[in-house]
Amino acid sequence: MRGIWLEKGTMSYQDSLPMPVLGSDELLVKVRYAGICGTDIELQQGYYRFKGIPGHEFVGEISTGPRRGQRVVADINIGCGNCLHCRQDLHRHCLDRKVIGIKNRPGAFAEFLAVPENNLLTIPDSLPDSLAVLTEPTAAAFEILEQLADQIPERVLVVGAGRLGMLVAHVLSSAGSEVTLLMRNQQRLQHIQDSSISVKADTGEMHYSLAVDCTGSPAGFAAALASLEPRGTLVLKSTFPELSQFDLGAIMVNEIRLLGSRCGPMQRAIDWLSGGYFELPRITSLGFDACEQAFQLVDDPTVYKVLLHP
Amino acid sequence: MRGIWLEKGTMSYQDSLPMPVLGSDELLVKVRYAGICGTDIELQQGYYRFKGIPGHEFVGEISTGPRRGQRVVADINIGCGNCLHCRQDLHRHCLDRKVIGIKNRPGAFAEFLAVPENNLLTIPDSLPDSLAVLTEPTAAAFEILEQLADQIPERVLVVGAGRLGMLVAHVLSSAGSEVTLLMRNQQRLQHIQDSSISVKADTGEMHYSLAVDCTGSPAGFAAALASLEPRGTLVLKSTFPELSQFDLGAIMVNEIRLLGSRCGPMQRAIDWLSGGYFELPRITSLGFDACEQAFQLVDDPTVYKVLLHP
Repeated sequence: MRGIWLEKGTMSYQDSLPMPVLGSDELLVKVRYAGICGTDIELQQGYYRFKGIPGHEFVGEISTGPRRGQRVVADINIGCGNCLHCRQDLHRHCLDRKVIGIKNRPGAFAEFLAVPENNLLTIPDSLPDSLAVLTEPTAAAFEILEQLADQIPERVLVVGAGRLGMLVAHVLSSAGSEVTLLMRNQQRLQHIQDSSISVKADTGEMHYSLAVDCTGSPAGFAAALASLEPRGTLVLKSTFPELSQFDLGAIMVNEIRLLGSRCGPMQRAIDWLSGGYFELPRITSLGFDACEQAFQLVDDPTVYKVLLHP
Repeated sequence: MRGIWLEKGTMSYQDSLPMPVLGSDELLVKVRYAGICGTDIELQQGYYRFKGIPGHEFVGEISTGPRRGQRVVADINIGCGNCLHCRQDLHRHCLDRKVIGIKNRPGAFAEFLAVPENNLLTIPDSLPDSLAVLTEPTAAAFEILEQLADQIPERVLVVGAGRLGMLVAHVLSSAGSEVTLLMRNQQRLQHIQDSSISVKADTGEMHYSLAVDCTGSPAGFAAALASLEPRGTLVLKSTFPELSQFDLGAIMVNEIRLLGSRCGPMQRAIDWLSGGYFELPRITSLGFDACEQAFQLVDDPTVYKVLLHP
C-alpha cells in the first residue's frame, strides 16, 4: 500500500508498504484524511525513537466486516488491558501502552491501518471528514475541562495560537470562559472564528488564574507562568522533546499548580465538532506522495492544518 | 541591640544594631530562639537581595504592653491588607507583602523584632521553646495537607531528609500515610522518631501517587518526578534560587500535577507540636555572636537543627 515511512529523521513516501496484519478484535480502517500534528514533527526529530508509519490524527472508514463503510476516528492509546490503569479506564496511562502512530504501533499516514475495535468511534453523517480529522486534538483540548472537572475560571489565557492552541481557545470559549490568546504571529488571526476570543501579542501585566501553554517552547511556558496570579493553574498541553530550563522557585513561592495534560475524551470532541462550534479554517490537503511539501507547509501560519490523503 | 546582619553575602554579628521601631498595631517581641533554615542560606547567596537582619523561624516573648511575657510565634507574611488576596485571607500571597526576615522586613536573628499583633500566635505552656521554634517549618509541612484538602494517599514518598523533609515525613505519617523517606545521607537516620517511616537510599522502581520534594536540588526534584505513577502529584516544598532544567515532557505525558507549596497554617502546627508527635531531635544552640560557627554547623547531618539565641 501507499504511505509515509519515518526512519532516521526522514519522512519518505513509499508505494509498497506491507498491508497491516489484523490482530484479534482489530478492524482494518481505510484512511480518508490524516492531519499533521506538532508531535509528528517531534517524532521526526527523534522523539520516542519512532520508526515506521506515523500519523495519529485521522478519519477513515471501516473496510471489512459487517461495519464496512462506517466512518470512524480512533482513541490512539492501546493499553495492555490488564494493569491497574487499564482496569480503571485509564488505558491511556498504561505503562505498556502502544500509541497509534507515536509509540510501537503503525499510524495513519498510509492507505490502511489496523485498529482495535474498542478504540474506534463512529462519526455522525453530519460531521465532514475535514472536521472529524480534528477529533483527536479536540479531545486533547477537552482534557483540560475533564481535569478541572469543568470548573474553569471566568478569564483564561491560552499561550500559542498554533493548531492545538486554536482548538483549546475555541473549546474554552465555548465552555463559557473569556479567552485571551497570546500569539506571536498575527497571520494566525485569520483562523479565529469565535469573535469573543481576544488576542494579545505580548504579556505585559497579566493576572490570570488559569493559563494553558500550547507552544511547546520554553519561552511560551515561561510566558504562561509569568501570567499567573498566586495559586493559579498552568496547564501544560504541548510536548517538550528536551529538558527545559524553568523557574521552579516561582512555582513554589506563588504556590502554582502545574497540570500536565495529554489525550482526552474522544466522544466529547465528536459531539462538540458536530455542534458547529468550530468551522473548518483554512486547510491544505495533499497526497501521501507530496509528503515533503506537506511537512514544509506545516509552519505556514496562513494554513491552519495540513492534511494528508491517500 | 545584639544580632546578625546580612549584607553582600556575609552574615556578621553586630552588637549595636538599632532597636526596632514599632509601627501601629505592632508589638515588640524579645527573641528566645531563632532557627537557621535553608532559606537563610539562600538569602546569603543573594535570594531576594535581602539586606538586614534575617531569621524567620523563631519563638519569643512579648516585651511590652498588657501581653508582656506571653510566649509567641509569628506568621511571617505581612500583607498590605487591602488587595484581593488579603481580603480573601491569603495575605501570604499579597503581591506587596513583606516577609519577616526574608523580604523587606527585619527578622529574628536579633534580640528584638517588631511584629504586627495580628501575626502573633500564643504558645501553650506545655510546648517548650525548642519545639515552638519549629512552628513555621511545621506549618509549611501542614500546607501540603491543606492543599490536598487532607486527602492524602496511603503511600507517600518524601525526598530529602533535611530539616523540612524530616518534618514533612512526620506530619504525613501522623496523618495516616505510609511514608517512605528518600535520603542520601544515612547519618540523618537518627533524627527519625516515628518508626513507621521507612527509608530508601535510592530510587529504583517506585510508583507513588504523591511525592514531596524537600531537597531544593534539581536532582531531588528529578528523583521525585521519576518516582510518580501517571497522574501522580508532586509537591514542591523547597526554594530553588536558580533556573533549573527539567523534563516538562514527562509532566505532560504522564499528566503529573505539580503543586508549589510554601507557608502554612500556624495554629495547626502549634497544635501538632503540642500533641507530642515530634520530640526534639538533636539540636545545637549558639549565641548570635557565634553566627559564623552556627552557619557552618547547618550542614552537619548529625545535627537536626541549629538554633541561635541572644
